[in-house]
Amino acid sequence: MQRLLAGRRDMRHFRRGERIAPETLQRLLQAAHHAPSVGMMQPWRYLRISDPARREAIAALVARERDATASAMGERAAEFLRLKVEGIRECAELLVAALPPDDGTVFGRRTMPREMVVCSLACSIQNLWLAARVENLGLGWVSMFEPQPLAELLAMPAGAMPLAILCLGPVEAFYPAPMLEIEGWRSRRPWQDAVYENAWGEPASPNSAASKA
Amino acid sequence: MQRLLAGRRDMRHFRRGERIAPETLQRLLQAAHHAPSVGMMQPWRYLRISDPARREAIAALVARERDATASAMGERAAEFLRLKVEGIRECAELLVAALPPDDGTVFGRRTMPREMVVCSLACSIQNLWLAARVENLGLGWVSMFEPQPLAELLAMPAGAMPLAILCLGPVEAFYPAPMLEIEGWRSRRPWQDAVYENAWGEPASPNSAASKA
Repeated sequence: MQRLLAGRRDMRHFRRGERIAPETLQRLLQAAHHAPSVGMMQPWRYLRISDPARREAIAALVARERDATASAMGERAAEFLRLKVEGIRECAELLVAALPPDDGTVFGRRTMPREMVVCSLACSIQNLWLAARVENLGLGWVSMFEPQPLAELLAMPAGAMPLAILCLGPVEAFYPAPMLEIEGWRSRRPWQDAVYENAWGEPASPNSAASKA
Repeated sequence: MQRLLAGRRDMRHFRRGERIAPETLQRLLQAAHHAPSVGMMQPWRYLRISDPARREAIAALVARERDATASAMGERAAEFLRLKVEGIRECAELLVAALPPDDGTVFGRRTMPREMVVCSLACSIQNLWLAARVENLGLGWVSMFEPQPLAELLAMPAGAMPLAILCLGPVEAFYPAPMLEIEGWRSRRPWQDAVYENAWGEPASPNSAASKA
């Protein structure tokens, strides 16, 4: 399990001209459906993009947001533009994951209604990601898009919102480390720095979980 | 993998008086840390609650929100109040998962800054959940709390926000199906109903992933 979790990668490079067997894709979508959800809302919808024109339109939306992101980057813009941020045209299957319109569930989300449906969809995507890794398929989560134009492109009803464009398919090789780390964009924090005890900022005490001793 | 994903449960019943070995808890926190995150922000913090008084205060916060939820439930209030919604006092380890203050990252979240950090934290929790299941430990995600008082109780800085109280520990048995399904609260949708093709509401075509044929 540790090996699976540590070997999962956010992929941007895919082998061109591949396809995924329908029964494999079904297994992955079932994995996504076996996610936890607040009040059992199951607030996830997956749109399989099989129409080439629609795939191309999605690639164009992402290209536009990539430019907008570069403009917002300031001094790291040039460095950013050297990074490959998606594999939309190359990947075997393209999926869009979205929240459906809110069904008004109160259970477990009276105080955080928005956050909790977002969490449920994210857990579902993480299931799909890990299940894909087991099948030796890469997945890349692209969040570089304006949600409203993408929602319109895919005829989503009011209140629905896409959170992820998912590139899925065979890859030449999984990156040995996160691509952003390999590219020198950002590095991993030690896991112990993310663990406190009883109060924010308090390092975990000796003999407890996160002791560095 | 399918068996692991299908066998993960949101647990509310734990064996009392148990503990988790420090090295096991470390493995689980490392699993959580091996999550994907937008722009490699790694926007997750885990607070281990080892202080009994603090655990009790968290239980009290959840009890208060349970009452508020029941009041908001309308005609299902009595049915709701029969459900066990947390195992805070019984579980071996209690963790609180929270977003840190925003670090201003633009990469991958110019258009959806809030959703994307929430997604990253949720993926991290799902990793922890699955890793716990592999170790035969139950986990229950409690979202029934007001975030602000919980943030204050744990001395979180402005901009930080708790999204989950995580009950973790040995259980007598994993529920054979989601507890809310067993209790008749809500049932599972067929996975095919969550899959569309090219446009919202369009059933996946024959020979494609979600064909029911």
